[in-house]
Amino acid sequence: MSIGETAMARCAAWRHPPFSETPQGLTRRYLTPAHRAALDQLAGWMRAAGMSVRLDAAGTLIGRYEGTGSKTVLIGSHIDTVGDAGAYDGALGVMLGLGCIEALAASGERLPFAIELLAFGDEEGSRFHASMLGSRALAGTLPAILPEMVDTEGVSLAEALHGFGLDVARLPEAARAREDVLLYLEPHIEQGPVLEAEKLPVGIVTGIAAQTRLKITVRGVANHAGTTPMNLRRDALVATAEAMLALERIATVAGIVGTVGTIEAHPGLSNVVPGRAVFSVDLRAPTEEARDTAEQDFARTLDEIAARRGVVVEMQVVQRLAPCFCDARAQALLAEAMAAQSVRPFYLPSGSGHDAMSVAALCKVAMLFIRCRAGISHNPAEHVEAADAETAAQVMLGFLRRLGEKEAAAF
Amino acid sequence: MSIGETAMARCAAWRHPPFSETPQGLTRRYLTPAHRAALDQLAGWMRAAGMSVRLDAAGTLIGRYEGTGSKTVLIGSHIDTVGDAGAYDGALGVMLGLGCIEALAASGERLPFAIELLAFGDEEGSRFHASMLGSRALAGTLPAILPEMVDTEGVSLAEALHGFGLDVARLPEAARAREDVLLYLEPHIEQGPVLEAEKLPVGIVTGIAAQTRLKITVRGVANHAGTTPMNLRRDALVATAEAMLALERIATVAGIVGTVGTIEAHPGLSNVVPGRAVFSVDLRAPTEEARDTAEQDFARTLDEIAARRGVVVEMQVVQRLAPCFCDARAQALLAEAMAAQSVRPFYLPSGSGHDAMSVAALCKVAMLFIRCRAGISHNPAEHVEAADAETAAQVMLGFLRRLGEKEAAAF
Repeated sequence: MSIGETAMARCAAWRHPPFSETPQGLTRRYLTPAHRAALDQLAGWMRAAGMSVRLDAAGTLIGRYEGTGSKTVLIGSHIDTVGDAGAYDGALGVMLGLGCIEALAASGERLPFAIELLAFGDEEGSRFHASMLGSRALAGTLPAILPEMVDTEGVSLAEALHGFGLDVARLPEAARAREDVLLYLEPHIEQGPVLEAEKLPVGIVTGIAAQTRLKITVRGVANHAGTTPMNLRRDALVATAEAMLALERIATVAGIVGTVGTIEAHPGLSNVVPGRAVFSVDLRAPTEEARDTAEQDFARTLDEIAARRGVVVEMQVVQRLAPCFCDARAQALLAEAMAAQSVRPFYLPSGSGHDAMSVAALCKVAMLFIRCRAGISHNPAEHVEAADAETAAQVMLGFLRRLGEKEAAAF
Repeated sequence: MSIGETAMARCAAWRHPPFSETPQGLTRRYLTPAHRAALDQLAGWMRAAGMSVRLDAAGTLIGRYEGTGSKTVLIGSHIDTVGDAGAYDGALGVMLGLGCIEALAASGERLPFAIELLAFGDEEGSRFHASMLGSRALAGTLPAILPEMVDTEGVSLAEALHGFGLDVARLPEAARAREDVLLYLEPHIEQGPVLEAEKLPVGIVTGIAAQTRLKITVRGVANHAGTTPMNLRRDALVATAEAMLALERIATVAGIVGTVGTIEAHPGLSNVVPGRAVFSVDLRAPTEEARDTAEQDFARTLDEIAARRGVVVEMQVVQRLAPCFCDARAQALLAEAMAAQSVRPFYLPSGSGHDAMSVAALCKVAMLFIRCRAGISHNPAEHVEAADAETAAQVMLGFLRRLGEKEAAAF
C-alpha cells in the first residue's frame, strides 16, 4: 500500500471503538479512553518505525526520528474530533507524517535534522470550552485559568489530566525551547471546496485568517402584523435581512468571507412584527487590515440601516483573532515539491483555525491542505481520495528532503 | 361620567380578580370563573338598564333592549382576553354598547328596532385551539369536531361548557335566524397605529383583511464559515434575507401588509453557513385579489432567488382566509354620525380578525375603530383615551338614531 492508502486506512479504522467513544458515529475527545486507545496504537506504530516516544505534559504524543543534525522539524496535527465527526480532520495529517517517517526509516534515510511527529490531543475544544490546548501548551501560551475549566460532566481539566496519568502543575513543561525547533509543518484536509473547484489534490496555505465574531442585537418595535402599515413599522428582522445582504456584499467585494450563522426573532410569533432580532457575524480575512476594513464597512452600513429604519443596533465583539502567516520560504519549498509531483503549485488562505496558529508563537509554520470532497468536514460524510493523500505524502517527503539539502540553514 | 368614561372605568375594573384569572396581569379565558364573574356583573348592568338577559348555548351573554319594531340590531364584541392582556381589546366595545343602551333607557328612548348587546365569550382562542367560537355559534358556522378539542389542562370544550351549565349538544341552538337581524355593529380598539397617525379618535372599518399564512423552507448547503468562499456558497439564510426584503417591497408597493414573524437557521452555529432556513409569512390585504397578486409576486420572486442562489424553496400554505366587507350603507351612516361630532370621516381596513368576520355569515356588519395609543394591544400597556371612547359612543348613538330614522328599511 502507498503511504496515502495506509494513512487513509488507519484513519478509517479509528472511526470505531475503542478509538471512538461512541459505537455509532466517531467522537474522540481529549483525555477520554478513546484518546488513550488511539495514543497507544499510534505509539506502537511510532516505535516500530524507530522513533522514541513520549507523552508531553498536555497529552500530546511525540515520536522522535533522529537526524544527523541537532535541530528539529515538527510535523503534526490533532487526533481529537468533534461529535459525530469525519475520520480525516486532524488524524490524516498525523498519519501522513507517520507514513513519511516510516518511508524514511524503511530505507534508513536520515535528514540533517530530527523529525518529531506530534499528535495533539485537543484542537477542537469539544470537551472543554477552550481549543488547541496541546499546541498552546507546546508554544507555552496556555492561560493560567485553564485547570479550573470543567467539561459537561463537571470533570475539571486538572482531574481529566490526572486520570490520564498527567499532572496539571506540570503543564508548563510541555513548552518547547525556540532554539531547538526549525519549523512546524501541518498537513490537514482543506475542510473547504476550493481545491476541489481548482481540481488540485493539494494546496499551499498562505496563512490562517484573521477572524472577528460579533453578536448583533437590533431593537425595533413589536407590532401587530395585521394592523401596522408597512410605513409605520420598525421591524427588527427586516433590518437584519438588510444587514445580512450588506455583509454578503461587503465580504464578496473584499474577497473575504462573512457569515450569519445564528438568528433569532422576538417575540417570534407569525402574527407579530419582530421587535428584536439577534444574530451572529463571523468575518474572516487573510489580513487584519482586510478584516478590520470589512468590519468597519459593516458597522457603518448597520448605522445607516438603523437610522433609516428607526431601529437601534448594538454590536458586541465576541472575539477578535489575529491572523497567522505561513513562512514564505517554506511555501516556496512546498511549491517546488508540488511541481516535482507534476502538481500546479496553488496558494490559498485557511479560513478555519488549526494548531499551526498556536505553534506560530513558537516557530515558523507551514501548512499543506489536502482536497476533501465537496468541502464537507465535521460530518461523517467527510471524504478524501487516497490518491490525494499519497500526493500529499510525496509533497511532504519532497519538502523535507529539499529542506535538508539546501534550506535548513536558512530557518 | 360620560359614556366613554364609564366604559373605560368598567374595563379597568375588570383587570383584576375575580374578573382576571391571574392576580397580576389580566387573563380572562373562555368558560373560566373569571369569565363567569364578568358575565354576572355585566348581566346585572344589563338588567339595571331594562334589558332582558340570557346566556346562549355558546356562552355569549345577550341583553335585549326592546324597540318599536320587530327586527334587531346587534351590537357586540368579546369579553375574553389573551394572556397578560390589555383591558380594552374586546371589552371596550361591549361596554360602549352597554353605555349607549343605558343612555337610551335613561331617557326612555325607543328605536324602531330592538338592540341586542352581545358579549362573546371566545374570540381570542386563548383557551382552545380555535377562535371566535361565540360569534361562529351565533352565525351557525361552528364545525362539528369542536366539542372534542381540549385545553392545555386536557379539559374538553364539552366538559368546559358543562362546567358552565351549558350543554355541548345544544350548541347549534345559538344560531340566529337571518330574518330577525338587521345588522351587527362592532366597536373595537384599532390595535394599530393608523388613527393615531391620522390624529383621529375613531375610524370607519371598510372590511377585514384577506389573509394568507405561509411556512417557507429554504434548503441550501451547510458549509464551514471560514473555508467556503462566498461564490461557492448556497446559504439558505442569505436567500431568506433577500426573500424578506422582497416581501417588504411587494407589500409596500401594493399598499398591503406582509410580515416575517418567525425565522430559524439550521444548524444554527455561528461558524457554519446555514444549510436550511424556515420562516413564516403573514400576508393581509383588503381584497382576495390584492392578497393573491402579492402572494404570486412573492412566489415568483422566491423562485427567482432560488434559481440564482442554487437553493430549493418549499412553500406551504398554513391558512388562507377570505376577507369580510363592511356594509357600504352602514359605513355611510357612520360617516354621517362622525361628521355630526365634527370628526372627519376616515376609512381604514382592519388587518386583524374580529367577531364581525364570523357574524358576516349571518348578516351585514359594520365596525367602528377606536384609536389606541401607539397601536399597542395584547399588552398591559394597551391604552385608550376616555375622550375617544366618548366620541365612539356618540358616533354609535348617532348611527343608531340615523338607522332608525331613515335607513332601517333598507337593510
